[in-house]
Amino acid sequence: MRERLINFGAGPAMMPEAVLRRIREEAFDYCGSTVSVFELGHRTPEFEAILGGLRDRIRRLLAVPKDYDILFCQGGGRLQFAMVPMNLFGAGAIASYIVTGSWSRNAQREALRIGRVQTAFAGNGTHAPRPDEYECLPEAAYLYYCDNETVHGVEFRDPPKAPERVPLVADMSSNFLSRPVDVSRFGLIWACAQKNFGIAGLSVVIIRRDLLGLAAPNVPTLMNFSVYSRTGSTPNTPPIFAIYVAALMAEWIEAEGGLEEMNSRALARSSIIYSTLDELRDVYALPVEPESRSRMNVVFRLADEEATGEFLAGAARRGLINLAGHRSVGGIRASLYNSMPMKGAERLAEYLREYAGRTLARKRSSPAQSRGR
Amino acid sequence: MRERLINFGAGPAMMPEAVLRRIREEAFDYCGSTVSVFELGHRTPEFEAILGGLRDRIRRLLAVPKDYDILFCQGGGRLQFAMVPMNLFGAGAIASYIVTGSWSRNAQREALRIGRVQTAFAGNGTHAPRPDEYECLPEAAYLYYCDNETVHGVEFRDPPKAPERVPLVADMSSNFLSRPVDVSRFGLIWACAQKNFGIAGLSVVIIRRDLLGLAAPNVPTLMNFSVYSRTGSTPNTPPIFAIYVAALMAEWIEAEGGLEEMNSRALARSSIIYSTLDELRDVYALPVEPESRSRMNVVFRLADEEATGEFLAGAARRGLINLAGHRSVGGIRASLYNSMPMKGAERLAEYLREYAGRTLARKRSSPAQSRGR
Repeated sequence: MRERLINFGAGPAMMPEAVLRRIREEAFDYCGSTVSVFELGHRTPEFEAILGGLRDRIRRLLAVPKDYDILFCQGGGRLQFAMVPMNLFGAGAIASYIVTGSWSRNAQREALRIGRVQTAFAGNGTHAPRPDEYECLPEAAYLYYCDNETVHGVEFRDPPKAPERVPLVADMSSNFLSRPVDVSRFGLIWACAQKNFGIAGLSVVIIRRDLLGLAAPNVPTLMNFSVYSRTGSTPNTPPIFAIYVAALMAEWIEAEGGLEEMNSRALARSSIIYSTLDELRDVYALPVEPESRSRMNVVFRLADEEATGEFLAGAARRGLINLAGHRSVGGIRASLYNSMPMKGAERLAEYLREYAGRTLARKRSSPAQSRGR
Repeated sequence: MRERLINFGAGPAMMPEAVLRRIREEAFDYCGSTVSVFELGHRTPEFEAILGGLRDRIRRLLAVPKDYDILFCQGGGRLQFAMVPMNLFGAGAIASYIVTGSWSRNAQREALRIGRVQTAFAGNGTHAPRPDEYECLPEAAYLYYCDNETVHGVEFRDPPKAPERVPLVADMSSNFLSRPVDVSRFGLIWACAQKNFGIAGLSVVIIRRDLLGLAAPNVPTLMNFSVYSRTGSTPNTPPIFAIYVAALMAEWIEAEGGLEEMNSRALARSSIIYSTLDELRDVYALPVEPESRSRMNVVFRLADEEATGEFLAGAARRGLINLAGHRSVGGIRASLYNSMPMKGAERLAEYLREYAGRTLARKRSSPAQSRGR
């Protein structure tokens, strides 16, 4: 492979060259069988080993306790928005939602199709609530939140606390396997694969077993977590290739040093960018409060917002691509998932300095009509 | 790639070597961009071209009329079992189901979670009904059938006729893009990709536009066909790599001569096996009536059923793999999708003769205790 672009896309995102190389080397003649992974049946021992290996690795990496199941689904995050309430609502129950940005808001809206919902916290996309800022109903079927808001760049340092007997449900789509997590604090954790651990078309669900079996009889078979649990996540043909890639990614994460190491790297990558932005406040604006800044998605704006297109074009010329903010909010976003090399963050920091230097020089030379066209 | 095994799996199934080679050559540095298809964002012009190209090719191959939408979903066939009734049931409506084998039976069972269902035909897995054998309610929301029953090897020569104003719905999961179809006879056609046109994790839905927008408000967003129609099948991150592979497969089908050619090949492949089995009725039993025999899945049994394991082992030694029947029915099944080379069918026919010769010789030499152990 040629020298690669630095892809700051929010997902689907970069993958490690080592993983891409392994796909190229082994997927086409899998295990010397002359059958490729693309053609592998889902009832073959080869696929069972891939799926079992992925499950075991996730269990090991996150130290998932024995009373939790690890399930694999299709449909992406938006299907989970519906599957969570369909599976966890009791009859006539209500669920509490902490809203910190687009994804938790969308999840809450979807839950409203299924049952009643209380807003435990309504944020404006700038911070994760402190313990005194949210209130969960003690009778809630569950307390839902999004551990990392990809669009707004808001991440929880620590998970919120649910009242006793209320299961905590987390969307970890954009920070799963990026740091250690105390799974025992959760009733359910779900994440889609295409950010930190694979390609689109696969989601993982970690669920405490006592929360299985609560779905109403009219819930579709493929929306029922119990069915995935009972069938070892093969209620029908699973997305075999996506599971294979996730298994390679989990293996790579383990080989690189596990979740402590992923977290160190994530902190190093995001810190170098945040500190550069903080130093250059005349040019860059950071909407997210410091204690809620995401290690995964660094969201910022130019003080001169009209220059955003020029900033992005200059970045692309340097091989730094997909830095545009989410279409719903604009601005700039650098997504820094597990596969982003430190060098990628360093090159972005360099560009931030260079761009700021040029902008400030231009401002100084013509203070009255900066960017006046 | 080394000489490949002949993979008779019912899906995931064989893929053409030309398509596998193309994935290896272009997926890792897509369009010279040094970004691989595995990392391609779903809002990039590159992916839009892939998705649009697949949609256009399916429209061309099947001559899909202008008043039909072509949608791409995740979840596989079993999710479609729920999506079809969720989208097509009117308030208080009833749907009619033609049951010809496992897949239509499962679809009917799933529809019962959503609404009321009438059985228009209850078959025993040996034939598709003649026009006088099924009865669809004139007030049905739709008439559902499975165009090719993968487990039982039962295929319709011509689609059933629905009463006027009742949309006909077909599951074409295992014979999609294997022959021309008059789409205008249908309200909805759906198929999963992993048999004739790609890998698992993708389904295609062809729907007449007047059937969009009928879903109840509580239907989950990702279960609503209107949402896929409105967003060009990107309501969320679609299964990008599966769409890319399907696009390559559709391109390959077109380049090889289109659906007339796929049908000629399917008829040639299945005929050589059926005619060999017919000649050797002392050794092989064919449960499906001749006029309903599937071109895609040749299902048969040994007269001496106990010898099935030995038959399969002998086949595997010759590189003919995955010939076991579906676990629910046992026996033997040779799946012959678009990618199966004629040589594969010929090699199976040779083995059928060879195995039969040996069995008959053994019977003649010890008629009283054949296979007595």
